[in-house]
Amino acid sequence: MSELIDHTLRGGWTPSGAGAAPLPAHALRWLSTRIGLDGITTPAAPASLLDVPGSALPEAARAELAELLGEHQVQTGATARLGRAGGLSYADLVRRRDGTDLAIPDAVLLPADPAQVQQVLEVCVRHDVAVVPFGGGTSVVGGVTALRGEKSSVVALDLAGLDRLISVDPVSRIAVLQAGVRAPEAESLLAAHGFTLGHFPQSFERATIGGFAATRSAGQASSGYGRFADMVEGVRVATPVGEWRLGSAPASAAGPDLRQLAVGGEGALGVITEVALRVRPKPTEMRYEALVLDGWQAGAEAVRALAQQRVLADVTRLSDVDETAVQLELSGGVKSRALRTLLLGRRIAEPCLLVLGWESTSGAELKQRRAATLRALSGFRSLRLGPRGGEAWHSNRFAGPRQRDALLDVGVCVETLETATCWSRLSELRSAVRAALVRALEHDGRAPIVMCHLSHAYETGASLYFTVLAARSAQDPIGQWQRAKDAATDAITKRVPGHEMGRGTLTHHHAVGADHLPWLESEIGSIGTTVLAAAKRAVDPTGILNPGKLIR
Amino acid sequence: MSELIDHTLRGGWTPSGAGAAPLPAHALRWLSTRIGLDGITTPAAPASLLDVPGSALPEAARAELAELLGEHQVQTGATARLGRAGGLSYADLVRRRDGTDLAIPDAVLLPADPAQVQQVLEVCVRHDVAVVPFGGGTSVVGGVTALRGEKSSVVALDLAGLDRLISVDPVSRIAVLQAGVRAPEAESLLAAHGFTLGHFPQSFERATIGGFAATRSAGQASSGYGRFADMVEGVRVATPVGEWRLGSAPASAAGPDLRQLAVGGEGALGVITEVALRVRPKPTEMRYEALVLDGWQAGAEAVRALAQQRVLADVTRLSDVDETAVQLELSGGVKSRALRTLLLGRRIAEPCLLVLGWESTSGAELKQRRAATLRALSGFRSLRLGPRGGEAWHSNRFAGPRQRDALLDVGVCVETLETATCWSRLSELRSAVRAALVRALEHDGRAPIVMCHLSHAYETGASLYFTVLAARSAQDPIGQWQRAKDAATDAITKRVPGHEMGRGTLTHHHAVGADHLPWLESEIGSIGTTVLAAAKRAVDPTGILNPGKLIR
Repeated sequence: MSELIDHTLRGGWTPSGAGAAPLPAHALRWLSTRIGLDGITTPAAPASLLDVPGSALPEAARAELAELLGEHQVQTGATARLGRAGGLSYADLVRRRDGTDLAIPDAVLLPADPAQVQQVLEVCVRHDVAVVPFGGGTSVVGGVTALRGEKSSVVALDLAGLDRLISVDPVSRIAVLQAGVRAPEAESLLAAHGFTLGHFPQSFERATIGGFAATRSAGQASSGYGRFADMVEGVRVATPVGEWRLGSAPASAAGPDLRQLAVGGEGALGVITEVALRVRPKPTEMRYEALVLDGWQAGAEAVRALAQQRVLADVTRLSDVDETAVQLELSGGVKSRALRTLLLGRRIAEPCLLVLGWESTSGAELKQRRAATLRALSGFRSLRLGPRGGEAWHSNRFAGPRQRDALLDVGVCVETLETATCWSRLSELRSAVRAALVRALEHDGRAPIVMCHLSHAYETGASLYFTVLAARSAQDPIGQWQRAKDAATDAITKRVPGHEMGRGTLTHHHAVGADHLPWLESEIGSIGTTVLAAAKRAVDPTGILNPGKLIR
Repeated sequence: MSELIDHTLRGGWTPSGAGAAPLPAHALRWLSTRIGLDGITTPAAPASLLDVPGSALPEAARAELAELLGEHQVQTGATARLGRAGGLSYADLVRRRDGTDLAIPDAVLLPADPAQVQQVLEVCVRHDVAVVPFGGGTSVVGGVTALRGEKSSVVALDLAGLDRLISVDPVSRIAVLQAGVRAPEAESLLAAHGFTLGHFPQSFERATIGGFAATRSAGQASSGYGRFADMVEGVRVATPVGEWRLGSAPASAAGPDLRQLAVGGEGALGVITEVALRVRPKPTEMRYEALVLDGWQAGAEAVRALAQQRVLADVTRLSDVDETAVQLELSGGVKSRALRTLLLGRRIAEPCLLVLGWESTSGAELKQRRAATLRALSGFRSLRLGPRGGEAWHSNRFAGPRQRDALLDVGVCVETLETATCWSRLSELRSAVRAALVRALEHDGRAPIVMCHLSHAYETGASLYFTVLAARSAQDPIGQWQRAKDAATDAITKRVPGHEMGRGTLTHHHAVGADHLPWLESEIGSIGTTVLAAAKRAVDPTGILNPGKLIR
């Protein structure tokens, strides 16, 4: 834990010792040719140089919290506070590296259990202190930025102490986990009972159960295991007006599903302290493989066929031509030349990589499901790459954030964004977002690299995940990205004539946070924002919870 | 339509000409032996004898509504108003037959489209008139009772005019249907495009798209097609503060899923006017069959195995010993004696009927899925009855409400209730509800018949559906059932030590309405009811929408 915080405050993701994954020389050369790099490195400023203002937490509040939690569980030192100064968006990382414009909480609170979380909220209401719930700190939308709102002080409520597996019901296959349990620990706690959650987002190494629930996370194997919201059977939530428990059955018609207010509440509608989750037997068999399809259009049609015939692999990811090209480029020149010959043989002019993965407790069942998937793909021209490509993806699937650290080091503006829409609008959405990003980031005749993959497929539509690489503006790196993000988000939320809704959703699994808030009303309407504000007033009348996130 | 209304006001379900299904003589004899019937029939009072008070709708409001909708679309006559005087619970039907205690709306409004619905709400706000949205009128929980709340008049907003299929997107497999489309019409409108909704609740013949959404309905084939809430991609909702549209992607992390406030809002949080729904290709292949398993425990274990191995048939229904016995009894003595010999041969002492049904557009796919289901059942001792039992169920699947009419005619107290919980509490829940119903309804040494089936299965749990038959109390028929319902609901909502929640949910698919409202807080907590009330104030500040339902 402290290792993660240490590294975060130095401006990156990679835990010490985990290998910062410096870019290979050929990749750096290629990148430099494509987007133009000036050779200036941008290392992180040492924490000792950062300007950390004194804590504004009133002494009376601090003392009361220390009385409640213990002196060591109320931390006001610079290191602890810097470690919770925001999440891990590109802007967050740039701010940390530069040491400027950091929103630093006045204290870090470390409660030990749900009862203490509840008591902390009561103290903070009395002293009118803003509270930012903090799990893995992996938000890329400003969800854990220590904003004060109208309060004069703000604390980070770090849930790391809520790290227990409370119960496992092997008959119902429901496990109750505390909010602060990190995904790898959740998997190892459940594995001891023979179960898995099957939730593997790119933030897996750091993110927590509470964070997954609060942000409606979706993992890479969501086609097989479902989105995190689909796994939630019940929640225990601390709010300023008392503790709230929801979930007495797998499905209910007892009014609107209020669990869906807690799940997606982003810490603005309560602090999730425990989550009852559907678990599955830990798979013993896995098969990952890759295919190449010809062009985005055919690739998307293929994934749609899988989704609508309900034979999706547990992991199903389709990269567009640009993302495929970068993957081939980074995997080495020679190999990709050999591959090109094979592609030519299959008349594949625009290679799009499709990664498929199946997991099961039964080899026979896996074989059958794999056969059904491949049967549904048989009508599409493809080149099968076999297990190697799939396993390479599988073993690197959490490497993205580490690669970003390496790219930040060499002066690259690197960020991701995502959306989702129905199948009939998917390609138009991809083109529109791509065009907006390219237009906003090209300069001096150099275009950025904009890659896209389809990462989560449903019967009615799919999500799109964009990764952008551009030469970083030395003068205004944050403004540079913000303009691109604005343009992309405008393209996403642009009204479709006749449909009266945007082209796609503002976010499929990154959440709203502070960064998406300006666009939220375009998606849920003024009635939607009014309803959220009313719900907030009901559970948080004085507005201490995560000000400036999700709800204005 | 008018035929349905006609019959409703005579105190039953059965549309004229559809055959009221009088009970066969042997069934009547057997029933009389089991629960004791006094031979007194209880026909419906003729509508002409009912006491219908004059309309309390202020003339200014009536005139403005007539101006808006047309004179004929604002009906204040007795027949129109009686036809919307409540739903189809046992108590509703008894009240209609007796002609007493009817809550009769002051007028029936028949808007032609969503825009008119929106305008109606604005007029009703101005004149402070309560509005009860009315679809198929099939609520069994008092969801469409014309309660006035604090208003001096109330109108039934009948959505029958919103009967259009707005659009079909065959690529995304999304159809937009207006709220007043009845399920059979929805199926035939979609069939013209090759699609089906796959939503077949027992109320199918009368219920509407808007009603399904407002109440979080679940159909008999929910294992295959999902609950109605799972099919909802988007909604268009009229509210007193304006029109609200939600749903721009199959999945989103743009805050809490507010569609889940509209879906399950029961007309108290807005009037749903259009629903965008996921559709599937209309199946060309169907296979229904029945098996007998040995005892409830083994039967529930078998269904759990299917759910957790994810090989449920599209329809999966397990009857307990009592329900199975009644089904065998009603299907005729001789046949059941032959069956008993077969059961004896398989050492099945406590027969529990399991109905399975698969639907597909591909015979090969159906065969494969059926094989997977049956393979998972191979470890359970069973007698396969083949297609006949399954097809008999399939062809009678909407007959329940008609049979109820026949039972009401001969003086039977007949009602259903339902709940759901996780697998590990399922049998305890069934026993507790059963015991509560038997205790409350036995008198003069005669026990009621209490039957139960498991109708909807999930990986983590299942729903239970109870049907009760008892000799009807001549003095106080409604009180007699209310006491039984109270006892059953107390058994359902009773706290489980350590779990801090009820044994099961108050309702799996019947909704809250007026009847379940007293228990809602025990399920969602005082914070839940506060949040719902806050959401209601946000969308319906003067409280005109469906007073007394869902929200106090």
